[in-house]
Amino acid sequence: MSTETGFPSLDHLASRVREEQLLAPLWPEGRGIALIDQTKLPFAQEILQITTAVEMAAAIREMKVRGSGAIGCAGAMGAYLAVRNAPGQPESWNERVQLLREARPTAVALRRAVDEVLDAARAAAEPVAAAATAAAGFVERQLEMERAIGRHGAAAIPDGATVLTHCHSGALAGAGYGGRALSVIRGAVESGKQIQVIAQETRPYFQGARITAWELFQLGIPVTLITDGMSGAMMETGRVDVCVVGSDRLAINGDLANKVGTYLVALAAREHDVPFYTATTRYNVDAGCRSGKDIPIEFRSAGEVLTIHDRPITVEGVPALYPAFDITPAGLLTGIVTEGGLFNKPFEEKLRWLLAPEAEG
Amino acid sequence: MSTETGFPSLDHLASRVREEQLLAPLWPEGRGIALIDQTKLPFAQEILQITTAVEMAAAIREMKVRGSGAIGCAGAMGAYLAVRNAPGQPESWNERVQLLREARPTAVALRRAVDEVLDAARAAAEPVAAAATAAAGFVERQLEMERAIGRHGAAAIPDGATVLTHCHSGALAGAGYGGRALSVIRGAVESGKQIQVIAQETRPYFQGARITAWELFQLGIPVTLITDGMSGAMMETGRVDVCVVGSDRLAINGDLANKVGTYLVALAAREHDVPFYTATTRYNVDAGCRSGKDIPIEFRSAGEVLTIHDRPITVEGVPALYPAFDITPAGLLTGIVTEGGLFNKPFEEKLRWLLAPEAEG
Repeated sequence: MSTETGFPSLDHLASRVREEQLLAPLWPEGRGIALIDQTKLPFAQEILQITTAVEMAAAIREMKVRGSGAIGCAGAMGAYLAVRNAPGQPESWNERVQLLREARPTAVALRRAVDEVLDAARAAAEPVAAAATAAAGFVERQLEMERAIGRHGAAAIPDGATVLTHCHSGALAGAGYGGRALSVIRGAVESGKQIQVIAQETRPYFQGARITAWELFQLGIPVTLITDGMSGAMMETGRVDVCVVGSDRLAINGDLANKVGTYLVALAAREHDVPFYTATTRYNVDAGCRSGKDIPIEFRSAGEVLTIHDRPITVEGVPALYPAFDITPAGLLTGIVTEGGLFNKPFEEKLRWLLAPEAEG
Repeated sequence: MSTETGFPSLDHLASRVREEQLLAPLWPEGRGIALIDQTKLPFAQEILQITTAVEMAAAIREMKVRGSGAIGCAGAMGAYLAVRNAPGQPESWNERVQLLREARPTAVALRRAVDEVLDAARAAAEPVAAAATAAAGFVERQLEMERAIGRHGAAAIPDGATVLTHCHSGALAGAGYGGRALSVIRGAVESGKQIQVIAQETRPYFQGARITAWELFQLGIPVTLITDGMSGAMMETGRVDVCVVGSDRLAINGDLANKVGTYLVALAAREHDVPFYTATTRYNVDAGCRSGKDIPIEFRSAGEVLTIHDRPITVEGVPALYPAFDITPAGLLTGIVTEGGLFNKPFEEKLRWLLAPEAEG
């Protein structure tokens, strides 16, 4: 089976995935999109062949592809499939991408990506080629953003450092270089530094144990696992030089909403004079939130706390709470790594510059 | 089968276990000692019948009975069994308790309890009755200590409070009232206050999910489970009024060594002006340690971090670290609850008074 797509833009992207040691969540392959099933990691590496926008919507809904950057890429490629499967019926495209648009209600990047690809196809004489180019362009822009985070963030990581990270903010949640936090680590490694990582398992969903550890292992970067209660002991025993985490959402003053457990790491880091960074992109900065007080903490279903591997961990009848994230005040951050640079305090003016249209170029 | 033991001292203890709603780790029953298998909790309540000191040693070694107070009680009852099984052969007693003495090398209370019972038997004309009285006395003293912790600690818990606790420092780790931390909670409830508890699951061994939640559920005290990374989110959302934890070991200045994860709770508590208490006894205060710097953090086998329910949680080949405890500096403690009173800062003079022989009475 040929892996050629018939479109130079998609072939170029596919060759980058092969040649740049990318851990891509999905990539063009033949007439479809290959997608790694993240729900099976790290115990099996199953590659799905996605050939329609509806299949792509299902993969998003079932968390087979996850993370804001990766979901954007999935949206772009799903829209390309909708156009390619009905090049002569532009009136059907909207219907074909309807499930895709709705696959993850909170993912703004998903709808932005779908629109970008469909708009390009509608404006072109050769809609499939235009959709292919737009979709590949979306993913390549995301890749360049991750590489820029890596370049800027490398300066924050000393040679020989042990980096503590929480949850998963890596390649499979982005376009394949390193997402946010792992782009900083990868950038430091590619700048020639020797780096070790301590990854927190990240209960209840174990993203750190399952995905972060898998990515670092694939890249040959030494990684050691701890539980979410151990960051204090690690710092007390001098085992951590710097902390780097991702960001679900950043208020304009720099207050950080990220996977629950992040805030405790930041408190321990301040206590032990360990620098603490978040890696983020303009798409994670919410200018509508003046501070963390404007970000309500979402509580999810407690089932994930109460069972592991389909077996209960406590007495039947005991309830649980599952706050999806916590708020780390900007005052606890040493700096914010973005595609536009490494920002130090105060953050607001720099974050506003990052959001301005002229910073996009 | 009669549950009478033949000795008033042991029958008195057994009746207290029944009548005072104790969650005793073990109690006299007929010619043996009934012992709840803590490794099976909370999914099964298996009661073992222990009839020899060697069986008691095995139960300790296999963690069927655990926690410093409970292990002391097991030592006392094991020594009683050694005497009772060979009342006319005092020269055999030392050999009979040898495995018992060695069952847990770090448990000082274990050897103290064995010696106390054998010394009483050796000095008496009726050695079995003397051993029974000494063993029952050991357990009843432990019970009174727990009740005293409850009385003193109740003052620290406001009516209507939600109390956050970490790990298990409860009845099954003591003589059956509430051990250390849970004695404070039980004391507050018995003083007429309405209390809810948030229990951290306590990775890697899940003592909070398995044992603490079970005890509170048995006592009808409302309990909600969270993971070890969630205390910060709980405090940010105003869900915690006071924290109470146990103590593996306390330096004479009040620095606290307790199950890993404790320190992060204390840091978050300070940040949110939430009072933070440890409950302890004279037997956990180590006058040989001037501060936490004198307590080396023990690292245990990483296997417990890497597998849950016999299945791996991460990539094969990724190592883990398991610091058994962390150090919470005395400065983060609001107070220390002991059998001798509720101590506020500075702690050293009060802890020295607690250790002095005259405080024993």
